[in-house]
Amino acid sequence: MSFMKEALEEAHMAYLKGEVPVGAVIVKDGVILSRAHNRREELKSPLAHAEIIAIDNASKVLKNWRLNGCEMYVTLEPCPMCAGAILQSRLSKVHIGTFDPTLGACGSVLNLLNNENISRIINVQWKYNDECSEILKDFFKMRRKSEK
Amino acid sequence: MSFMKEALEEAHMAYLKGEVPVGAVIVKDGVILSRAHNRREELKSPLAHAEIIAIDNASKVLKNWRLNGCEMYVTLEPCPMCAGAILQSRLSKVHIGTFDPTLGACGSVLNLLNNENISRIINVQWKYNDECSEILKDFFKMRRKSEK
Repeated sequence: MSFMKEALEEAHMAYLKGEVPVGAVIVKDGVILSRAHNRREELKSPLAHAEIIAIDNASKVLKNWRLNGCEMYVTLEPCPMCAGAILQSRLSKVHIGTFDPTLGACGSVLNLLNNENISRIINVQWKYNDECSEILKDFFKMRRKSEK
Repeated sequence: MSFMKEALEEAHMAYLKGEVPVGAVIVKDGVILSRAHNRREELKSPLAHAEIIAIDNASKVLKNWRLNGCEMYVTLEPCPMCAGAILQSRLSKVHIGTFDPTLGACGSVLNLLNNENISRIINVQWKYNDECSEILKDFFKMRRKSEK
């Protein structure tokens, strides 16, 4: 099973709700512990990014704030808030579907997950996937159209 | 009324629960919208820092993910996750009681709130307060003792 495909399914759910289409799943030992999509408008919360909701759910499943041994698959490069949450959660690895040139905090604009000033390092694996960027381009094209 | 004192009261509540003692309040037009303390162990969530809970509550009060015009008073310099959440929430100003030399993301280790690579800038006001650092020193001294 492709976990990035599962994250993409979540991104599609966000798209259908009119949310910026980003999805994430958290996996441990080959099993999906939690899955989420961006719900910022729906929940009216600046915290409701896919990664934050997925981390919150995974902690609830494991009854532990430490997610060592877990891996996240996320369709878009995490922002500083989400990269910081990944550091706090001790996730072991993050697989990223496409980069974010405006606020990406895993190498594009900043690098919080492998930063010489921060003692913790998170393993990042880039898994470029055209669908992860296409769904975002479609979304913003549609939004610009509807704003006209 | 000193809003930093209110944030310190929250830090004291965390201390009494055995949590790293950090507190935060969010204020709009001179009124406290939300108040919170670190509850990471209690909630078993890596997200349950004082700032994150305070932002979540303030968004619920305002029914809006944008906290423009709101100011946060926090006893300890926010970490990358919390500084990132402050960026996402559009808080107008953050007042900080003491610095965090290990993970502070508002000038000590990183500077996310006034960073040339990020288009948004948050006004930071340092309000050094001995009590904000003393309560942390006491907490870690007590914890080291009990670990022996």
